[in-house]
Amino acid sequence: MGRQILVVGFDGIGDRPSKELNGMTPLEAASKPTIDWLASRGAQGIMDPIAPGVIPGSDTAHLALFGLDPFKVYPGRGPFEAIGAGAVLEPGDIALRGNFASVDSNLVVIDRRAGRSEYGLDELVRFLSKNITEIDGVEVRFYRATEHRVAIVLRGRGLSDKVSDTDPHVEGQRISISKPLNDSEEARRTAEVINKLSIEIHNILKDHEINRERVEKGLPPANVILMRGAGKMPHLKKIWELDRIEIKKAAAISATALIKGVTKILGFEVIHPQGATGGLNTNVASKVRAARDMLDKGYDLVYLHFKGTDSASHDRKPREKKEFIERCDEALSRLILEFADNIVIAITGDHTTSSELGQHTSDPVPLLIYSKDVFYDALGRFSERSARVGVIGRIRGSDLIYILSDLAGRQEKFGA
Amino acid sequence: MGRQILVVGFDGIGDRPSKELNGMTPLEAASKPTIDWLASRGAQGIMDPIAPGVIPGSDTAHLALFGLDPFKVYPGRGPFEAIGAGAVLEPGDIALRGNFASVDSNLVVIDRRAGRSEYGLDELVRFLSKNITEIDGVEVRFYRATEHRVAIVLRGRGLSDKVSDTDPHVEGQRISISKPLNDSEEARRTAEVINKLSIEIHNILKDHEINRERVEKGLPPANVILMRGAGKMPHLKKIWELDRIEIKKAAAISATALIKGVTKILGFEVIHPQGATGGLNTNVASKVRAARDMLDKGYDLVYLHFKGTDSASHDRKPREKKEFIERCDEALSRLILEFADNIVIAITGDHTTSSELGQHTSDPVPLLIYSKDVFYDALGRFSERSARVGVIGRIRGSDLIYILSDLAGRQEKFGA
Repeated sequence: MGRQILVVGFDGIGDRPSKELNGMTPLEAASKPTIDWLASRGAQGIMDPIAPGVIPGSDTAHLALFGLDPFKVYPGRGPFEAIGAGAVLEPGDIALRGNFASVDSNLVVIDRRAGRSEYGLDELVRFLSKNITEIDGVEVRFYRATEHRVAIVLRGRGLSDKVSDTDPHVEGQRISISKPLNDSEEARRTAEVINKLSIEIHNILKDHEINRERVEKGLPPANVILMRGAGKMPHLKKIWELDRIEIKKAAAISATALIKGVTKILGFEVIHPQGATGGLNTNVASKVRAARDMLDKGYDLVYLHFKGTDSASHDRKPREKKEFIERCDEALSRLILEFADNIVIAITGDHTTSSELGQHTSDPVPLLIYSKDVFYDALGRFSERSARVGVIGRIRGSDLIYILSDLAGRQEKFGA
Repeated sequence: MGRQILVVGFDGIGDRPSKELNGMTPLEAASKPTIDWLASRGAQGIMDPIAPGVIPGSDTAHLALFGLDPFKVYPGRGPFEAIGAGAVLEPGDIALRGNFASVDSNLVVIDRRAGRSEYGLDELVRFLSKNITEIDGVEVRFYRATEHRVAIVLRGRGLSDKVSDTDPHVEGQRISISKPLNDSEEARRTAEVINKLSIEIHNILKDHEINRERVEKGLPPANVILMRGAGKMPHLKKIWELDRIEIKKAAAISATALIKGVTKILGFEVIHPQGATGGLNTNVASKVRAARDMLDKGYDLVYLHFKGTDSASHDRKPREKKEFIERCDEALSRLILEFADNIVIAITGDHTTSSELGQHTSDPVPLLIYSKDVFYDALGRFSERSARVGVIGRIRGSDLIYILSDLAGRQEKFGA
């Protein structure tokens, strides 16, 4: 009933020519015989993960890669930052982004980021999680994010994300009162819960031992959480609910919380293989082995995600990015040899991360599709440059799963 | 007041390299001096009839080619299968797809396709058409489709397509009762009409002479119609109603019921020339002559449709597809010589049909545009391969009429 599909997603794969690599991009400079062998019989093109010129986040890009339109379904960063911090969200959950911050006894904000010091914050999140689990019948959960950040999730009936922030966004003002942003009972109630939560957090943190220690060390106390960007988790179509596509069982191999969370929400079985770290030091062989297992088990779609490319780019290390690609290529060789004739393969990524700028850019990502009957260009080497002259031309991220599912014989025609 | 536009649509034009043609596609292998002469001064590109990766039907693709978004306006296959079977639908009509099937005396389905035997079905459709014309004030019409299939159209005020199927979709169960799928009075009434119709069809077919003959021959009786996929015909914009485009009179030359129906709904005058069959044996000269006539008569847009390319692909005959293209090319020569300098010409098709797979694929179709002032690439030969390096790049089907109407001087600018 159709062939299997393997998508290898190198996070932040695209890049720009690098001086350190003699004007080549990391992908261009990498020695990658496995991927280039696919390119010798495959088709290349460039892909705008969201749309031309739009700088993708990893979350919005992955929604698009698996057939959704992020402009329509993305609920703002609150829910996806919570997912990235390890939350498992359900439709209807309200998520907020939070900062640990310092207020004085009049609740006037002294430092919006509590000195950017992470000291003791892990413990404070554990403490909050244990001591505040519910406000007015609404479940409350806390998730530790990076640096001074924390994600807060509210779960219950009749909640709304149409509420204003408690973060005054400037120092020297009292923390704000969350207000309903429309006339609904839901918004009124949610704002009330947030305000009660805000006070309760302050009440149990202000005399916490961690804060005494912080003050002793000359650090501002982390005695409040400023909340912003409330977002409501929508129902997102599962991969098997996409129109006209028949993908029943999908697996995602990743060690990155955000990608694990997004793919899980989309209905993938998520595999975090032993030794996979979500960084440059990940055990690539272990991840490739997991992908093989999933193909052997007959999964219709296997998504193999490597984060190291993105990490190297954010650290402005094009050479490490190149070397990481080389390690992945080597690890992939046996898998590709074994499966290439019988499956449909895409090599691409969720966005471009410039190793020079150290951040995401809107440059389209290179895309390589291999399938025994794809209309190929046989360019022989896979890179940003060759992708720009490939036969696929320029497509969008949300087109990809349709192109692959057709090549795999897993799509019904639209119409008669 | 603008130049005339000729669109030559080869159904299922696109293809993949074929072993039988030494690795060339039928279009590539064809000797087609007329079309290649246009390519020597024209512009090529690839076109996704609907969107990249989406496998088009001929109906959805033609809606797109004439400026509509099938994702927004397509009402499901029911109405368009009825159109393909010869129905002339009006907005508001409800169409259902039907199978002749066999039930026992308890209305339990024994064979969902009546043995796939067409024996006597033409006569049964005529009999039904004569004897069931109305149920509860709702007009009922029957249209013979291919194999064991039939299309049913309900016409009347206050009908809804939000009703469930009478087809139980498995054998060994009683035929299903159609149920309203929402709370509306329209859905309730429509379901009631369908259920009465279902019983009445059985009552007048069960003892029909054709069924006695079928049973004598060892065939399952065709004593019921299982209905599914109710769809409501929407109002579709006529070609002269497209935003900012000035095409007042359009003609379509085709011998294919579905294409004739779609273009008629879109406001084309439909011409079915003598000798045109909708197949490989069609009289191509007669069709080209009809196109010339329409150009001579001053029609703004003439659509000349050839079905043979698609038929050959479905039959997995790339060589016949190539030869059919050659015959069309020859027939077109005089028309092209005579008109090329003064009109805008597009050579393309509604979708790719792979001669290897024998079915539609989502591969983009090649597109050639000729106009004395088009920004040309002058590639000299028209094929899937050259189209992939043409100056047009990659566009969508719904862009085409805009590109052509601008080249023809028939479009207002959007904005000031």
